[in-house]
Amino acid sequence: MESPPPPRPGATRRRARDLGIVVGSCGTGPLNTITDVPGVRVGHTTVRRPPDVHSGVTAVVPDLVGPRTPLPAGVFTGNGYGKLIGSTQLAELGALETPVLLTSTLSAFRVADALVGWMLERPGCEEVRSLNPVVGECNDGFLSDIRARPVHEEHVRAALDTASGGPVAEGCVGAGTGTVALGFKAGVGTASRVPDVGGRRFTVGLLVQANFGGTLRVLGRPLTPPSPGVAPDGPGPDADVGSCMIVVATDAPLDSRQLTRVARRAVFALARTGSAYSHGSGDYAVALGTRPDAGRPVADADLGPLFEAVLDGVEEAVLNSLLAASTTTGFGGRTAPALAADALVAALAGPVPGFGDR
Amino acid sequence: MESPPPPRPGATRRRARDLGIVVGSCGTGPLNTITDVPGVRVGHTTVRRPPDVHSGVTAVVPDLVGPRTPLPAGVFTGNGYGKLIGSTQLAELGALETPVLLTSTLSAFRVADALVGWMLERPGCEEVRSLNPVVGECNDGFLSDIRARPVHEEHVRAALDTASGGPVAEGCVGAGTGTVALGFKAGVGTASRVPDVGGRRFTVGLLVQANFGGTLRVLGRPLTPPSPGVAPDGPGPDADVGSCMIVVATDAPLDSRQLTRVARRAVFALARTGSAYSHGSGDYAVALGTRPDAGRPVADADLGPLFEAVLDGVEEAVLNSLLAASTTTGFGGRTAPALAADALVAALAGPVPGFGDR
Amino acid sequence: MESPPPPRPGATRRRARDLGIVVGSCGTGPLNTITDVPGVRVGHTTVRRPPDVHSGVTAVVPDLVGPRTPLPAGVFTGNGYGKLIGSTQLAELGALETPVLLTSTLSAFRVADALVGWMLERPGCEEVRSLNPVVGECNDGFLSDIRARPVHEEHVRAALDTASGGPVAEGCVGAGTGTVALGFKAGVGTASRVPDVGGRRFTVGLLVQANFGGTLRVLGRPLTPPSPGVAPDGPGPDADVGSCMIVVATDAPLDSRQLTRVARRAVFALARTGSAYSHGSGDYAVALGTRPDAGRPVADADLGPLFEAVLDGVEEAVLNSLLAASTTTGFGGRTAPALAADALVAALAGPVPGFGDR
Amino acid sequence: MESPPPPRPGATRRRARDLGIVVGSCGTGPLNTITDVPGVRVGHTTVRRPPDVHSGVTAVVPDLVGPRTPLPAGVFTGNGYGKLIGSTQLAELGALETPVLLTSTLSAFRVADALVGWMLERPGCEEVRSLNPVVGECNDGFLSDIRARPVHEEHVRAALDTASGGPVAEGCVGAGTGTVALGFKAGVGTASRVPDVGGRRFTVGLLVQANFGGTLRVLGRPLTPPSPGVAPDGPGPDADVGSCMIVVATDAPLDSRQLTRVARRAVFALARTGSAYSHGSGDYAVALGTRPDAGRPVADADLGPLFEAVLDGVEEAVLNSLLAASTTTGFGGRTAPALAADALVAALAGPVPGFGDR
Repeated sequence: MESPPPPRPGATRRRARDLGIVVGSCGTGPLNTITDVPGVRVGHTTVRRPPDVHSGVTAVVPDLVGPRTPLPAGVFTGNGYGKLIGSTQLAELGALETPVLLTSTLSAFRVADALVGWMLERPGCEEVRSLNPVVGECNDGFLSDIRARPVHEEHVRAALDTASGGPVAEGCVGAGTGTVALGFKAGVGTASRVPDVGGRRFTVGLLVQANFGGTLRVLGRPLTPPSPGVAPDGPGPDADVGSCMIVVATDAPLDSRQLTRVARRAVFALARTGSAYSHGSGDYAVALGTRPDAGRPVADADLGPLFEAVLDGVEEAVLNSLLAASTTTGFGGRTAPALAADALVAALAGPVPGFGDR
Repeated sequence: MESPPPPRPGATRRRARDLGIVVGSCGTGPLNTITDVPGVRVGHTTVRRPPDVHSGVTAVVPDLVGPRTPLPAGVFTGNGYGKLIGSTQLAELGALETPVLLTSTLSAFRVADALVGWMLERPGCEEVRSLNPVVGECNDGFLSDIRARPVHEEHVRAALDTASGGPVAEGCVGAGTGTVALGFKAGVGTASRVPDVGGRRFTVGLLVQANFGGTLRVLGRPLTPPSPGVAPDGPGPDADVGSCMIVVATDAPLDSRQLTRVARRAVFALARTGSAYSHGSGDYAVALGTRPDAGRPVADADLGPLFEAVLDGVEEAVLNSLLAASTTTGFGGRTAPALAADALVAALAGPVPGFGDR
Repeated sequence: MESPPPPRPGATRRRARDLGIVVGSCGTGPLNTITDVPGVRVGHTTVRRPPDVHSGVTAVVPDLVGPRTPLPAGVFTGNGYGKLIGSTQLAELGALETPVLLTSTLSAFRVADALVGWMLERPGCEEVRSLNPVVGECNDGFLSDIRARPVHEEHVRAALDTASGGPVAEGCVGAGTGTVALGFKAGVGTASRVPDVGGRRFTVGLLVQANFGGTLRVLGRPLTPPSPGVAPDGPGPDADVGSCMIVVATDAPLDSRQLTRVARRAVFALARTGSAYSHGSGDYAVALGTRPDAGRPVADADLGPLFEAVLDGVEEAVLNSLLAASTTTGFGGRTAPALAADALVAALAGPVPGFGDR
Repeated sequence: MESPPPPRPGATRRRARDLGIVVGSCGTGPLNTITDVPGVRVGHTTVRRPPDVHSGVTAVVPDLVGPRTPLPAGVFTGNGYGKLIGSTQLAELGALETPVLLTSTLSAFRVADALVGWMLERPGCEEVRSLNPVVGECNDGFLSDIRARPVHEEHVRAALDTASGGPVAEGCVGAGTGTVALGFKAGVGTASRVPDVGGRRFTVGLLVQANFGGTLRVLGRPLTPPSPGVAPDGPGPDADVGSCMIVVATDAPLDSRQLTRVARRAVFALARTGSAYSHGSGDYAVALGTRPDAGRPVADADLGPLFEAVLDGVEEAVLNSLLAASTTTGFGGRTAPALAADALVAALAGPVPGFGDR
């Protein structure tokens, strides 16, 4: 808006798989993004006014979702130091009435208000008198002047109106513009999996807004800063003002109870990446089903591969959020360093840290 | 704001106790209001633009509450068809960081945004980068043009800035301006109790924003419309777009787990008044402790009288919300009739309905 | 078992409706019992060894329920001072694998063990290696030597094996043999309703094991002891060792999320009867669906009449539990007086207590 | 009982740290066991009748715990396919009244009954009429004839009566006798940490009964079967009949809300070890505080190092449970192979699997 997102250096930016980092054995969708789930679109508005503002909003937009055409959904709160708007109604009715928006903590309420405005104008919503907007947030105050509440109605509308299928920008974009995770600059990340669920193949898409503390683990290997080239120099982001918002989408015909179980695994998966689940972190997942009527219901006993797909996909999405992000200097002159892909590769090829070095 | 609340016809408006309706045996505080709890103030802004807009905002303001000085609190969701903003963090940390605001459903998000703005300007909040505003809502769309989202920042600031101790306006005021309950015009109601809790006397204050469906019961007696003069004529409010927001405040030194137990009883109490707890109702209670350090903690085994105080006080507050409200014609020409005190008194003096008349 | 239940003085025992007490406007099933729900049977074993033991077990047995053929179910904990065995799995999977048993607190675990034994012997359970028995309990220690844990495997098997449709014994029988509620001798009570749910008529059956403190309200009228003939003389049961276990069954095709909503209303309904929801009370409801495939799913927006049926039916079941019970003297010479039907009728015909008598 | 546990080959059994596997940077207590927490004792009874029965019971016994002297506690259900007895009261009151027992699924109810009997005989419990036994379980039916319900009152009493401080037997002992995890024979494991919590040093002790599916990760490195010598040959345990019960004890003066937060991290930690959190797993943690009055309360903002201690300690306890276990052939001739320490060391020294080998 105020300033476009910096060009994504596509040629040099590599995702986890490009580096040979493969999480789990289940295959991915064609783009390895949440948009691999049919009918799911993503839109970003990046709000950047250097040096102080590095923020934005990201919209996950399932086709046709609305108050008259809700989708089944579940939610899980891993650590509730966060402001997930819409959570109680989502839990009660197991139904999602709006796109899911992600943004900056103190802007969340005006973003929700803008989402209401946008929805009320949708065709078929002329008589709508109640609406449950779902908006998650992370605290991007390490790099951005969060008190300015810089995300406005126009940004929300832009993210919603430009949401599209296909490739999804990752890293310092939209709601991930100012976020940091595990000591590094992070942002938005995505992945997908195509598990076999009781003989049928469905797609599971994941999108994370990564902003949490802890020690990075890649393929289970802890990468403890400061490893030169890998980890940040100097004092890092305050681990206690973190959060991770996770959106899961699937075309498997799950009901809201099952989607709640799915949402739980999404938060559990953060442990694999090294999350500290710190006191001040808002760790939430919202899981939605895009095609509730896609054939016979899935038996709970068949959910195993789908759960694993979520565990693997969230882990990969977090790695992607780190690998796509660029070193950023922001509010107060604070800097969050990017995770250097080459150094990461070198570290993975070396001996296991913490093993044998008593 | 746009228009002042209509003068409260104090001489003619009688509260439940003025009519001889006494709920329970525990005594009340001096004013029988939530402001009987030391340090609790209430402010209303009524937003009224006849014929279409009958809305507003009510603030329950505990002295000193803020992100650096949170108060212990608990929350309970009886039926989660509502948008209680701030609930997950409140449950996680058991702490209230802001005043509690009540308003109209679709305005809740801009009200929360305004509350954030107001709080960030408080002394001592200059460095605050995270804040959990707590805003409840009811759907006043039966009488008010809810889609207009008529409650703005100025209204929120006015409610907060003018909040005071002492008498509390009830009925068609603030967040109760456009609400209806049990077939009648309702609004804001309040009450208090002063139970003996393990040998110490504490105050419990209740405030409700009543907007729910069902069949009115007074002292357990069902008053089924249409009883001429008591109940509404013609088609009433849609029972499925209801809600009841309840705020409980106490100076008893309870922790958040105990306050959660208190909040639960507040929602249970609605059954006594005839609530249908309908599908579309958002029935929530927030319970807060104003003096967490007021002496030794309260043992759970001593909570009985306090629980009863909550059950009785909520029942009375709902009656007060009905008795104080005036017949109102609003959006779309719809009318919600007031509960006529004289007819109520006459009904209570007669035979029990539903008894013996098989 | 040790001693048969005392003969139920059928001619003189009247249920609430026999006295003209009609709760709500929805019709009942043919017997006004939980067994009106097709496929639901009830069995009682009364364990009575005067003067010290007044206990027993009650089984609610849905046809065909088993680990391979679970039924959808929901559970709600109103106040969790209780030992509802099986609750976490019931909540996770939304599925009931066994009959629901009710018994005495300290006997609950051996009753669950006996239920496991009984189930493992069922046809088709030869390979079962996991099972989630659901057993609720109330504390009958006011009248019975609860520490003796008098309910044994033989009693459990008898209740299960003799469970039948048709009339259901109420009052001092099975799990209600030693329970007290609202100052009176109570026990098991039941009722049913046949609401119209979105154009289809379904049956809702309720069964309560009533054992809670508070002040009796009949049709909303508080009946405060000591009213001669109505209320107990002398010190009553300890309000803080109470509980109410509620079982809801319906042939409406609800899913577990909806049944959880139903269970919540069952607990809310206790407020109408005067429950104090005291600290030491275990107030739980389990709601089960007997025919998940009975036609198209029920829309949440159509649940209103079903919710009301539950509110009304639980209120009536509690009254039935009181009216059917006989004055009992038990352990330690303590006595719980019966609610005298005649005195109740007289009280209902008189002026409203608490009204006008300031 | 029937047969003593096999001698623990102490000289040859090495714990994770003995192999150079160090999880996290926080120091351990003197024994790196849950008994490092002052006042916590552990007792095992192994019930072994080869070839069919491989089961038992483990008791975690905090000094002085009882219904008159409860300890603060929290509980978290990660996946509720389990029968954690006592969970609702524990959640409601935040209080633990008994030792925590772990055992085999179908034996859990008789174990709870035995625990009640044992407690009622304790000094000071002569008047106790209500008690909330806490018993967790895992399904050891892969190796043991679970339907025999082989754990009896005598075993429970033996575990309770012989519970002691000091070293804790791990692996195939007590409740871990028949359990399997991550494709290997597992059992009981333990660890401890001594984090700095806001300037004070407290001990956190962990004990797991490991029985869950997934792919083992050691220091984040996936060890996918079949790697000769590391992983099992032939068909492994049914991933869907798993579970992990975790007990956390600490002498930090936390309240029940904080202990609930701690319990959550314990379950999250399983993701690090490779847990699949499968449909049929009962993943629970109970966290208890042994010294609620040990000085000023801990601020939530100081919980970070304690959370990390839990994440690290659970990971290590699971590894210890695997490393201590011996290859076992049981019911139906099924075999669960031990994790070979030497092969594990070799694997850790090699290249990262899944990296670069596209």
